[in-house]
Amino acid sequence: MDESALIRRFFDGLGKARTDVVLGIGDDAAVLAVPEGHELVVTTDVLAAGVHFPNSTRPEDVGHKSLAVNLSDLAAMGAEPAWATLNLSLPQVEPRWLEGFSSGFSGIANEFGVQLVGGDTIRAPLSIGVQLCGFVPKGQTIRRSGAKPGDGIYVTGTLGDAALGLLAAQGKLQPTDGQTPYLRQRFERPMPRVQVGCALRGLASAAIDISDGLAADLERVLSLSDVGAEIDLGALPLSPAYTARLQHGIDRELAATHGDDYELCLTVPPDHEIRARKIVDGLSVGYTRIGVIESEPGLRVRDHHGELCRFASRGFDHFRSQRQG
Amino acid sequence: MDESALIRRFFDGLGKARTDVVLGIGDDAAVLAVPEGHELVVTTDVLAAGVHFPNSTRPEDVGHKSLAVNLSDLAAMGAEPAWATLNLSLPQVEPRWLEGFSSGFSGIANEFGVQLVGGDTIRAPLSIGVQLCGFVPKGQTIRRSGAKPGDGIYVTGTLGDAALGLLAAQGKLQPTDGQTPYLRQRFERPMPRVQVGCALRGLASAAIDISDGLAADLERVLSLSDVGAEIDLGALPLSPAYTARLQHGIDRELAATHGDDYELCLTVPPDHEIRARKIVDGLSVGYTRIGVIESEPGLRVRDHHGELCRFASRGFDHFRSQRQG
Repeated sequence: MDESALIRRFFDGLGKARTDVVLGIGDDAAVLAVPEGHELVVTTDVLAAGVHFPNSTRPEDVGHKSLAVNLSDLAAMGAEPAWATLNLSLPQVEPRWLEGFSSGFSGIANEFGVQLVGGDTIRAPLSIGVQLCGFVPKGQTIRRSGAKPGDGIYVTGTLGDAALGLLAAQGKLQPTDGQTPYLRQRFERPMPRVQVGCALRGLASAAIDISDGLAADLERVLSLSDVGAEIDLGALPLSPAYTARLQHGIDRELAATHGDDYELCLTVPPDHEIRARKIVDGLSVGYTRIGVIESEPGLRVRDHHGELCRFASRGFDHFRSQRQG
Repeated sequence: MDESALIRRFFDGLGKARTDVVLGIGDDAAVLAVPEGHELVVTTDVLAAGVHFPNSTRPEDVGHKSLAVNLSDLAAMGAEPAWATLNLSLPQVEPRWLEGFSSGFSGIANEFGVQLVGGDTIRAPLSIGVQLCGFVPKGQTIRRSGAKPGDGIYVTGTLGDAALGLLAAQGKLQPTDGQTPYLRQRFERPMPRVQVGCALRGLASAAIDISDGLAADLERVLSLSDVGAEIDLGALPLSPAYTARLQHGIDRELAATHGDDYELCLTVPPDHEIRARKIVDGLSVGYTRIGVIESEPGLRVRDHHGELCRFASRGFDHFRSQRQG
């Protein structure tokens, strides 16, 4: 079997078979039916080996994560994911790697109802570019720019686990307990909060997914909304695995500034806070109020003693290859 | 200015400002309005330095070509181009390279009414992944699978110029006349036949863009349509620059088997041939009948003496990095 046939074997029709795919892989382009009364939502992200994941990462996890980070962007818009295209840069064509990658990609694609409808492959150092399309009822996307003074600030799940998972993957975290697999899972197989984003359409005033760190990502919301915020470091939701490390050289700042968690940060007007909480509780996802939007620009952080503090680091915000050295 | 600001400076809002872009670059995803009664058409292609273009290619030309090859895919579907995302792998951030690239990308984007609505950048060997969305009235895409026995086979423009342009760029073509700039232009700045594709909706029975060579691409149409074809090598449309080389070691086979021309190959039922020709003539684009669809599977080629012949090469059809060595 030649290489292009091999690639087709692993990727043709990957994911859920959607009835709104009029024409999938195999022509010059895919043809797709956006439902009436809806707008198209489009995002793209590239993950590169040695930058966004260690070179040793299992292909299943690379496949999972390459779609997960894009699903997370749609989650932050409140959009339903639908169709993906995949551009693979591969140093060589290894059937076992391709099989693992397509299995990981397929697993999360099926879970979130996504069908692969196109792609391209070149020979180059390993990187994966995914472009994801979804849709949302007209006018109902949740934007970064909608936060207003008085809105509560919420985050889903727990923060900082991916930071510890990366340290574990790099062999820099002492495996003093049985939590390492959980932490690595959080770094290597993030679960995008698509259900939460979609459920809070019409309730949340702004949203962003936490890819570069809570502080850096929240500041993007503040800047685009022309507001400020105060958050309480002591209120950050931490997992038992993270909390257990607080005595061992890991602080709350890491959870507030490291990225890769792919949780959502949302702002919710006071009138909607009770209803929003009830809805998210019904989805069995953690949902924690960590602060409030204020009119004064800037992000103010209170430590767990109630004192205003400064972060030494504000998360990643540069040319992306610097991200994980 | 930091690197991400530099990249934003060159790419924010590139191309035509479209009124159907509800939300462009700057949020978690773009929000786009597909017109009612239309289907979404999506394609993606990656170009890599040293594979799809020589490393010495001017950044303006790289920017142009990276969008042109995707526009060509939409042309072959009969779709109107609208929105692009751009994933750039850059070995380093050079303002002059970025400026040239964005100028080339912007030029063709404006010409074809495309707005850049998202993207990502990583540090890696130079490659450019573009994903392009467009739309088409519901049910009216031109597919590869619709050719029927008796349909005429047409190609737009001229074939083989890009093959000579590549040889010129590689210093392998004797610059015996003043045609080298024309040939290099044809290789480096292909002009997608979007107007022709859109104008022939409802008339052409099948279409494909000629990226891998007429023979290889036409065979894809034949295979998906479950038909065969006979084409006449002597009928291939050749430019004066190409024809002038026919006495100097260049044959018609190169024009039939080398890719990169980004012309369209279309099949047109007999009932529509006169009307289709009239329409394409009005667009001032070359349009040449080169053969006919037959029920017997396979591609048969008659040379200019009328004899059936075989090609030594059938154009590129392998893992894409082999393409230009």
